[in-house]
Amino acid sequence: MRIGFVGLGVMGTPMAANLAKAGHELFLYRGREGLDGTHCTSAAEAAAEAEVVILMLPDTPDVENALFGPEGVAEGIKPGTLVIDMSSISPTATKEFAQRLKGCDYLDAPVSGGEVGAQQATLTILVGGEPDVFDRAKPLFETLGKNITLIGGTGAGQTAKVANQIVVGLTIEAVAEALLFAEKAGADPAVVREALMGGFAQSRILELHGERMVQQTFDPGFRIRLHRKDLALAIRAAAELDLALPNTAATQQLMNAAIADGDGELDHSALYRTLRRHP
Amino acid sequence: MRIGFVGLGVMGTPMAANLAKAGHELFLYRGREGLDGTHCTSAAEAAAEAEVVILMLPDTPDVENALFGPEGVAEGIKPGTLVIDMSSISPTATKEFAQRLKGCDYLDAPVSGGEVGAQQATLTILVGGEPDVFDRAKPLFETLGKNITLIGGTGAGQTAKVANQIVVGLTIEAVAEALLFAEKAGADPAVVREALMGGFAQSRILELHGERMVQQTFDPGFRIRLHRKDLALAIRAAAELDLALPNTAATQQLMNAAIADGDGELDHSALYRTLRRHP
Repeated sequence: MRIGFVGLGVMGTPMAANLAKAGHELFLYRGREGLDGTHCTSAAEAAAEAEVVILMLPDTPDVENALFGPEGVAEGIKPGTLVIDMSSISPTATKEFAQRLKGCDYLDAPVSGGEVGAQQATLTILVGGEPDVFDRAKPLFETLGKNITLIGGTGAGQTAKVANQIVVGLTIEAVAEALLFAEKAGADPAVVREALMGGFAQSRILELHGERMVQQTFDPGFRIRLHRKDLALAIRAAAELDLALPNTAATQQLMNAAIADGDGELDHSALYRTLRRHP
Repeated sequence: MRIGFVGLGVMGTPMAANLAKAGHELFLYRGREGLDGTHCTSAAEAAAEAEVVILMLPDTPDVENALFGPEGVAEGIKPGTLVIDMSSISPTATKEFAQRLKGCDYLDAPVSGGEVGAQQATLTILVGGEPDVFDRAKPLFETLGKNITLIGGTGAGQTAKVANQIVVGLTIEAVAEALLFAEKAGADPAVVREALMGGFAQSRILELHGERMVQQTFDPGFRIRLHRKDLALAIRAAAELDLALPNTAATQQLMNAAIADGDGELDHSALYRTLRRHP
């Protein structure tokens, strides 16, 4: 397939490489050295050549700008083209973007699994859109990831991703409070973590991020700065929905403190350090 | 062995039954019909006959009263007897109780795994005390549970149990916020839960309690009223340790709201309902 790929950062670059390896013809913006494909000078140019346009950008305004800004996708795209936004952005804005791209099909398909998942093509992919459009895109998703779910209509993929980030962020915070409690009360957090793995407290977070807290090694992984953005999406949507998310709000505040401490580029498990520093 | 067993409630009864089945001679207070053993009229009487005294009581004051109150364990116990407190109580009070029981060995050994774990002898047991005393008690623990860990010195078992209850309570709250968010934003929480199970959000809580939230069936399980008590232990100890546990505190407040709503006897997964009701 002829694929326009917009957004070649930490995640987009290995994803585009996997698509190229599978034999797809790529139109890249902005292209990176070492990536196979045509390097374009604008998102419009990448879209003009493509049957499918994939976006992988940091935040809602970046996607809006790439789609509808000057020399954006909307200026170059042909009717009938499929647009797949794999960025993690606002569910509400997603619905609006899909409507504005008249004549095109649209899927929101944010991912979970990080840089390693992107490289190894083991990403979890959470999709919103029409079932027949999802079926068309499925072979592409299978080149990029493993757990691929059509959650519901347009925006539902982004909604599920926000839900994922709530669970992950708040579980990390829970493990941090628990291990810090153990430590301050005089128990060895490594022994406590190990003992807790056998019961209801078991989670991938306790296993992986709990280990990072015990070792006090906080290389990312997933950065606190980016996780704060995801919880901001939750908080903003919660206000629109008249919904109380007390621990999401408190955890985002703690991420603000972490960033103020200069820890924004550390792995989110470094919230342990933030709690320790702010008694 | 001759075992005094004090506290034959929902947990203590099946635990005592497992000890009797393994061939131990039990001195029960307060005995229940159908349980094999000698039914005693006081904790002192149960202790007087025993090489090991096991306590399984609801809260710190109950243990204090059973040990040191009128006709309590301390009045009947012989020097050299091993006291094992399997209740979930304050780590600080535990250290004090162990010191007051001069001439006796003491282990704190709270459990996790609930009524089903007690019946099936699959409890997780978190132990604090001296290694040689732990070794003496280990065959008894193996009659009652499966994951048995000596965490550290006296009180460390209780500390680990509090840490466990922090992780469990806050992870349930996290899953409740996430699934409620999904639902209010128009996605199917059952589909979202299933999709999230494949990634970093995976936990036994998402699996088990997430399912209860999706089905809206909140039969206990573990009651909100009891979990509030466990988080109260955390909050009290945190004040003694000058430690900030923001999400533990917020979750305990939510449990207060659940109890005010008349949901105290429901499973802790019913926090989903509380969040839904209090926008």
